[in-house]
Amino acid sequence: MNNFSFCSPTEFVFGKNTELQCGKLLKKRGAGKVLIHYGQGSVVRSGLLDRITSCLQDHFIEYVMLGGVQPNPTDDMVYRGIDLCREKHIDFILAIGGGSVIDSAKAIAAGVPYMGDFWNFFEDKVTINKALPVGVVLTIPAAGSEGSVSSVITKKDGKLKRSLWSQFFRPAFAIMNPALTCTLPSFQTACGIADMMAHVMERYFSRTSGVSLTDHLCEALLQTIIQEAKVVMSDPENYAARANLMWAGTLAHNGICGLGREEDWATHKLEHELSALYDVAHGAGLAVMFPAWARYVAGAHLDIFEKFAIKIWNIQPLGDKKATVLQGIRAMKDFFVSIGLPVNFEQIGVRPDDIDELIAHLEINTGGSLGALMKLNMADARRIYTLATQQTIE
Amino acid sequence: MNNFSFCSPTEFVFGKNTELQCGKLLKKRGAGKVLIHYGQGSVVRSGLLDRITSCLQDHFIEYVMLGGVQPNPTDDMVYRGIDLCREKHIDFILAIGGGSVIDSAKAIAAGVPYMGDFWNFFEDKVTINKALPVGVVLTIPAAGSEGSVSSVITKKDGKLKRSLWSQFFRPAFAIMNPALTCTLPSFQTACGIADMMAHVMERYFSRTSGVSLTDHLCEALLQTIIQEAKVVMSDPENYAARANLMWAGTLAHNGICGLGREEDWATHKLEHELSALYDVAHGAGLAVMFPAWARYVAGAHLDIFEKFAIKIWNIQPLGDKKATVLQGIRAMKDFFVSIGLPVNFEQIGVRPDDIDELIAHLEINTGGSLGALMKLNMADARRIYTLATQQTIE
Repeated sequence: MNNFSFCSPTEFVFGKNTELQCGKLLKKRGAGKVLIHYGQGSVVRSGLLDRITSCLQDHFIEYVMLGGVQPNPTDDMVYRGIDLCREKHIDFILAIGGGSVIDSAKAIAAGVPYMGDFWNFFEDKVTINKALPVGVVLTIPAAGSEGSVSSVITKKDGKLKRSLWSQFFRPAFAIMNPALTCTLPSFQTACGIADMMAHVMERYFSRTSGVSLTDHLCEALLQTIIQEAKVVMSDPENYAARANLMWAGTLAHNGICGLGREEDWATHKLEHELSALYDVAHGAGLAVMFPAWARYVAGAHLDIFEKFAIKIWNIQPLGDKKATVLQGIRAMKDFFVSIGLPVNFEQIGVRPDDIDELIAHLEINTGGSLGALMKLNMADARRIYTLATQQTIE
Repeated sequence: MNNFSFCSPTEFVFGKNTELQCGKLLKKRGAGKVLIHYGQGSVVRSGLLDRITSCLQDHFIEYVMLGGVQPNPTDDMVYRGIDLCREKHIDFILAIGGGSVIDSAKAIAAGVPYMGDFWNFFEDKVTINKALPVGVVLTIPAAGSEGSVSSVITKKDGKLKRSLWSQFFRPAFAIMNPALTCTLPSFQTACGIADMMAHVMERYFSRTSGVSLTDHLCEALLQTIIQEAKVVMSDPENYAARANLMWAGTLAHNGICGLGREEDWATHKLEHELSALYDVAHGAGLAVMFPAWARYVAGAHLDIFEKFAIKIWNIQPLGDKKATVLQGIRAMKDFFVSIGLPVNFEQIGVRPDDIDELIAHLEINTGGSLGALMKLNMADARRIYTLATQQTIE
């Protein structure tokens, strides 16, 4: 086990009607004037935004609104948010939505007190050493951004999608009412499931030995997510299943699954090019890329993929370890298909000819190398993208 | 799943040589004058105390020492600590040791800014609303106090052992170097293992339904602890096994295993009387009480005990559910025996005649009722203590 540091100071307030605690939580933290940041209107239509603003009014908290964050959030919204926060003397940002809104809020929060271009953070030119506090009302369990150190922003000019990790990106609080997720469309639910599974798997597939506890924790999360995914797909309003998935999404990415382990993250980087260039939903892109990545690297890491097949997918161990491994990867792909996710390029509108452009961008964003379980160069990445064109849905 | 709130702001710094970060961590938090609180001299003999004080000197941090905390820490030491902190204008407490030292430090930390008798907190007469910050250098993985909201103190006059939970009891930081635990005596290691298992089991045995994630997390922890316990018993200097156990001890009691669940805690209360009256090591007392409690309550909760038998103890399900359940409980008892722990009253020097006194104290400390999976009254408690006299080591 490697040395690690871990600190997750976020206050999680989880359960039915918890959004009504929003005013109290902001007040407790001394919020003076709040930016309410949200997406494309579903929080308006559902009435959630009204409930939140009423709650803030009841607590005499001033606020300014900034809606319109799109999936795969972009730098132009972050610049708008930074300007608005400065102009209105905002001291707290409240993100209402899923990962895109929260990631945008985090980038704004870091940008406000920094006098340079916030994109410098995402290019690793400058380190964040200050940020406005961010609170969250989560409506989509997927990205885990409500409890994570991560923010992913796309620079429109050049379609550069970059992920940044900073301890300053951990939200001050996160309100999580699973009932709010019962009306999520099936496809969005499935994308969230793939995203949280990927967050665990990026950590599970590791070269670090002597990490039985985090191995078991990763397995516990994957087993739970798969079990509850099947329930919500047939019974979308099942509160317990929604609740288990929602909390699993947080634990999948708050860091505890990766403590003391080398993590991989090749698949996320391969996927980021899909969502940056073709505006594919991140979870859908992950469902395409994870089986392809696994097929490419498993041959060199049969033991861990055999364990994955047996413990996560209940494959009966076959005499031939490689056959067991392939059955496990196949089971993962079949699972993604079963919850309505794409598993090949054709399904997400990417043509084999596009691989050149994907690789060109990947090289810019990664410096030409990615992954840890197996270090991948651009030739490897090209082969994995090619495998992703060939995956069948049967 | 029940609603919950969860916030674990402790900074965990885990791994080899991490104790050398002590000065930096105190400085970062603005510590001016530190009380170094420790136990009965093993940290002196091992040289750890010298390394820590050197580190503080290197960072120009003033300190005062208060050693001598005993297992099952008592109120007299807490009073001494409070007086010393006030006299010397201490603003930070550094606990070096295991659960007893940390629990004592927490009680002192809450007592210093409170002008009444700190014992009022432990009698639920007053709520803690302020405390000095506490840092930890952990030397014994067991109680989980380095990451928990809990402190357990015994009032010498009357031998009242009381547990108190407060968010103010979460340490500011916890330094955890597994290498420091490689020289722990086998019996102390085993007691720690029983303690952390009990912390998980008090949460696992719950009436709350729809909690598959925390079910899986509890199972992951128990499986890891049992697996690594076997390793350290035969190979005490195995760093990876020590590391997995150490981190498991924290996660067993920082709260994540119990989120959204009703918890039980009958066994802990039954045990507290043993350690209060007979100065039994807490973990040893738990090894005696848990199988006895389980035998008493399992009949009314066969499903959860069957799952426990199958998933934790690898019992092949028998046609007769009750037989499977009994085999699981037996396997737990056999495991405790295998790591050198007592499993009956005779082994810990408690006579059957002592049960009257145990019950009398238990009634004072619990108000006559305890537990949640099965609500127990004093007649039930008497039967469980009686079962604990009868358990055999074969």
